[in-house]
Amino acid sequence: MSKRIGARTVELPGRPGILAWASVAGQKEQDGPYGAQFDVVIPDELNGEQSFEAAERSLLETAVKRCAQHAGCALSDVQMLLAGDLLNQIISAGFAARNLEIPFYGLYGACSTMSESLSIGSMLADGGFADRLICATCSHFCTAERQYRAPLELGNQRTPTAQWTVTGAGAVMLGAGPAARHAQVSVAQTTCGKVIDLGIADQNNMGAAMAPAAADTIAAHLQDTRRTFEDFDLVVTGDLGRLGRDLLIELLTQKGIAVREEKLFDCGCEIFGPQQDTHCGGSGCGCAASMLCAHILPQLAGGKLRRVLFLATGALLSPTSSMQGESIPGVAHAVVLEHREA
Amino acid sequence: MSKRIGARTVELPGRPGILAWASVAGQKEQDGPYGAQFDVVIPDELNGEQSFEAAERSLLETAVKRCAQHAGCALSDVQMLLAGDLLNQIISAGFAARNLEIPFYGLYGACSTMSESLSIGSMLADGGFADRLICATCSHFCTAERQYRAPLELGNQRTPTAQWTVTGAGAVMLGAGPAARHAQVSVAQTTCGKVIDLGIADQNNMGAAMAPAAADTIAAHLQDTRRTFEDFDLVVTGDLGRLGRDLLIELLTQKGIAVREEKLFDCGCEIFGPQQDTHCGGSGCGCAASMLCAHILPQLAGGKLRRVLFLATGALLSPTSSMQGESIPGVAHAVVLEHREA
Repeated sequence: MSKRIGARTVELPGRPGILAWASVAGQKEQDGPYGAQFDVVIPDELNGEQSFEAAERSLLETAVKRCAQHAGCALSDVQMLLAGDLLNQIISAGFAARNLEIPFYGLYGACSTMSESLSIGSMLADGGFADRLICATCSHFCTAERQYRAPLELGNQRTPTAQWTVTGAGAVMLGAGPAARHAQVSVAQTTCGKVIDLGIADQNNMGAAMAPAAADTIAAHLQDTRRTFEDFDLVVTGDLGRLGRDLLIELLTQKGIAVREEKLFDCGCEIFGPQQDTHCGGSGCGCAASMLCAHILPQLAGGKLRRVLFLATGALLSPTSSMQGESIPGVAHAVVLEHREA
Repeated sequence: MSKRIGARTVELPGRPGILAWASVAGQKEQDGPYGAQFDVVIPDELNGEQSFEAAERSLLETAVKRCAQHAGCALSDVQMLLAGDLLNQIISAGFAARNLEIPFYGLYGACSTMSESLSIGSMLADGGFADRLICATCSHFCTAERQYRAPLELGNQRTPTAQWTVTGAGAVMLGAGPAARHAQVSVAQTTCGKVIDLGIADQNNMGAAMAPAAADTIAAHLQDTRRTFEDFDLVVTGDLGRLGRDLLIELLTQKGIAVREEKLFDCGCEIFGPQQDTHCGGSGCGCAASMLCAHILPQLAGGKLRRVLFLATGALLSPTSSMQGESIPGVAHAVVLEHREA
């Protein structure tokens, strides 16, 4: 029986439950306005490891372990890990999965990975294919800078449209069946993103490259479900940043959608304070992931938020594609998160 | 209702159907023993494009388009594309998805991507989340060499354990419901892979790095389903190559499994002939993908093969992880493909 509604959205009639979540962040993130809400804060960029890459992996492992602890279950009770990250060949997720020993599907959606994993994961849980699975992602400022831009040691000046890659991770456990009966948050629908490219080619302007994908997915979701902004307490985007958020509002308005700006919460705009000198805000897989787990899910569980459209946005470029003159395609997947009475 | 059987395997009670498939290959692959079976062969490494990366992407696009043609449907009728490749940030799949305009979930499983996409895709189809979706992957000798090893222009000598990255692509359309009623091949079960690392650190010995993951997944599948090699016409692995295939037999035997060697068909051992100087054989996402679509699926559709365990294997390293002294983790996902009477 088809669970599809409209062109791009699927209904999750079993309402898979969010059983637990955990967030990990770095020092700069702790210094931001949401610093007190992260579950774990690492002491410095290396977190006791020999390389930034190993440190990034440790963030993801910590988030997954803490998430399982919160759910009161062993890692061996988790049937699947859906995870990815920004590094070439997603080595953070792959090596973390080796150490965690959880069966692993690797994803790549750049900074959209948190909502990509929730989108696929909620379908797998709803379909009866997993009783307990974890969706997770991470990013690290020091690994992203040297892979995508330049070695930190160069001390390059940042352009006004630049964003600051969040050092952080988030992990969410989804469940179905008896395990999920008492979950206070559930996933109701999900909308799969299309890859959208309006021709932005500036690698230091990710917000502009990703905003069209966010606009496209929000518009598709609202059309498929016949909803408006009024039906949501918040529409949470991942890391559009200040410029990208402005462009999203403009693009949605052009599509004839009545945007309620006060409901648009962009994790990239929020995670750092204005005095932290991050220009357009935060970015990276860990931005949406850590903010979802530290700030959004607790409010959904407590009933302060009743229904949230969560969509992380990813820029699907590589340094190679940019050097070859390609513009930057974006993608955004959406999930509807709802409070559920106990 | 849980569809799980055993620790790692899920049953697909709706038996999602394989509606169509298509393969694309390069000149060297055409010169191999299966050369006449590929749907499309590109005339040279660039296939009319400006870079090897753009050529790789064109292989994937061609495979997806040809697959939709074989199914008699438009690209706009395909609800999801599950795809990935070997390149950093999976730019082949991401940019192909931009051009194809199909809603896109990006995967990264290295050379395991064909079975990873079929594993996730068959669950999504079985669960009623998509009526028609395409699973696809590709690789290209020239892009992989310069990303993972050295520029081709260096003309480095290859070690005896080296494998040759296949220039090729494969695309498989999965369907459920009325669309799938007449499919001659269906997916019956799938087993999710664990990331396994026995400490191999030689980047020129991928077969040895991946064989333990293949052994682990085969053992898990046989235990979960209480099957033996006798229950399959073939057990098809992706690209273990000659050394990796030998190690797989040894590892399975150590686990107490009665291996029927004549049923072990490794695409990497098969795709090139002994005179083609590829040392241990073929590799790359496109190896298993193109051989599945050119050689295995037609036999399953015709009833010459009745039940096949298909598992592509991936090595989850990056040049960075190897330079940092890490060993090479492997992963393998399995799907059971069955002939269905018309």
